[in-house]
Amino acid sequence: MDFIPAFQPPADNNRPTLWFIFEKNKILINCENGACFIPDDQTIKDSGITPSHRLFLGSLGDQDCWAAEMSAGDAVPEPYGLMDLRVLLDTIGDELFWIAGLANHLIDWDRCHRYCGRCSHPTQDKTDERAKHCPACGLINYPRLSPAVIVAVVKDDKLLLARNKRFKGPFYSVLAGFVEPGETLEACVRREICEEVGLEVDNIRYFGSQPWPFPNSLMVGFVADYADGEIQVDNAELLEADWFSADSLPQVPPKVSIARQLINWFVGIHTPSLSK
Amino acid sequence: MDFIPAFQPPADNNRPTLWFIFEKNKILINCENGACFIPDDQTIKDSGITPSHRLFLGSLGDQDCWAAEMSAGDAVPEPYGLMDLRVLLDTIGDELFWIAGLANHLIDWDRCHRYCGRCSHPTQDKTDERAKHCPACGLINYPRLSPAVIVAVVKDDKLLLARNKRFKGPFYSVLAGFVEPGETLEACVRREICEEVGLEVDNIRYFGSQPWPFPNSLMVGFVADYADGEIQVDNAELLEADWFSADSLPQVPPKVSIARQLINWFVGIHTPSLSK
Repeated sequence: MDFIPAFQPPADNNRPTLWFIFEKNKILINCENGACFIPDDQTIKDSGITPSHRLFLGSLGDQDCWAAEMSAGDAVPEPYGLMDLRVLLDTIGDELFWIAGLANHLIDWDRCHRYCGRCSHPTQDKTDERAKHCPACGLINYPRLSPAVIVAVVKDDKLLLARNKRFKGPFYSVLAGFVEPGETLEACVRREICEEVGLEVDNIRYFGSQPWPFPNSLMVGFVADYADGEIQVDNAELLEADWFSADSLPQVPPKVSIARQLINWFVGIHTPSLSK
Repeated sequence: MDFIPAFQPPADNNRPTLWFIFEKNKILINCENGACFIPDDQTIKDSGITPSHRLFLGSLGDQDCWAAEMSAGDAVPEPYGLMDLRVLLDTIGDELFWIAGLANHLIDWDRCHRYCGRCSHPTQDKTDERAKHCPACGLINYPRLSPAVIVAVVKDDKLLLARNKRFKGPFYSVLAGFVEPGETLEACVRREICEEVGLEVDNIRYFGSQPWPFPNSLMVGFVADYADGEIQVDNAELLEADWFSADSLPQVPPKVSIARQLINWFVGIHTPSLSK
């Protein structure tokens, strides 16, 4: 049952609906006995919640998926609660997690483009595409994506991992940073590694990509070889950074992330095979 | 003499300066006898132009590079003119072209984020990084990049090229399109090729990346193999599309673009070597 994203709902409006409803950055969800449930149409009707700023997300099988915000004065209905999306990673399954992430991305965009940045006039939703239009000056705003690189730097049989100040847990990850205007992805890899740990890298290879909706990143993964320098941690961003071998890794990010996929790639090529 | 981008100018403020000055999307430039010149400090002083909304870009050798807009009422000084940046591709050299592109990108961003999109309050420039801050609600806006894929689709010894409605000349190019929220770069490649020409592709390989500052794209290049389908042109975007062999290419984009680099890659692997 694959999610099919879409801008407009199908003509049949009697399909069952899943509601991805946010209050600030937290999602309305029912978590009991280790399982979590996204509210359906009936739940929302019974709850007295009025979903505002509705955005159609797409279809999951025969179900329509909508994002919305809670309206002012809405109360959270029992046994529902408001939870940080990241906490749901392991409890609602990958597919619902990615749909909830898309919902979070679009709700955040919708909330931050209610007025025109050029002339301050209230914007209007376009009816033919996902965009906001300024009726006064004509500026059009599409949902924003912030491209970022994420890099596995390898030195012999060791991987560079760091603890970032912004991480909410005690885990280590590969380095990442947003692309700046005027640079290629590869130039961004060199700049980020140099700025954050003072190292030079070489032989930069593309690994893969992943949308990371907190709120709107597009992660582009690379693998690179250590070339020169000693680790010098930029304490504005990082708490610590070090080289780790495949058999002595610290706590790492959850498996759904491209960060973890890069780490797993490193472990895969640096773990002695059983047949040796 | 490499350009080194920076947010703040060096302490020494007696360095020579190049001014990348815009009126809407056109740049102030002196083109005579086939050569083009970016105005320097003295030219701007003599001209009576008051550069407004100044943004430091970085250093080119011992020269500071600044972007700015012409102020209301400023006249274009003889023998200068206002030109479309794309026209300069072949006349000011790659390095100045890329700096002018960065200037265009940042000026456009500056112009479109003078008010907060969330609450409509006038924004303020942050003093420690390239960002705009809303003193009323706290929203921070960084220069926006719009990631897009650009794809060379190959079928045996032929390359898929198309004429886009938006192209200003009669040339053909490889297909491209903006990444949407929630999709990977690879999913974007499949969706764009399917939407624009109705084909399925396979074996998608990363090629390289390039900032394309008209006004703010980040192009991510891929190569893909044709897998299935017959060309069905989406007339909303394209005028025509067809397969071309390396020895019968139509007019293609300028050499500075990643589009042309993809086409040159195809020509390189499909041109019989002289020794055969």
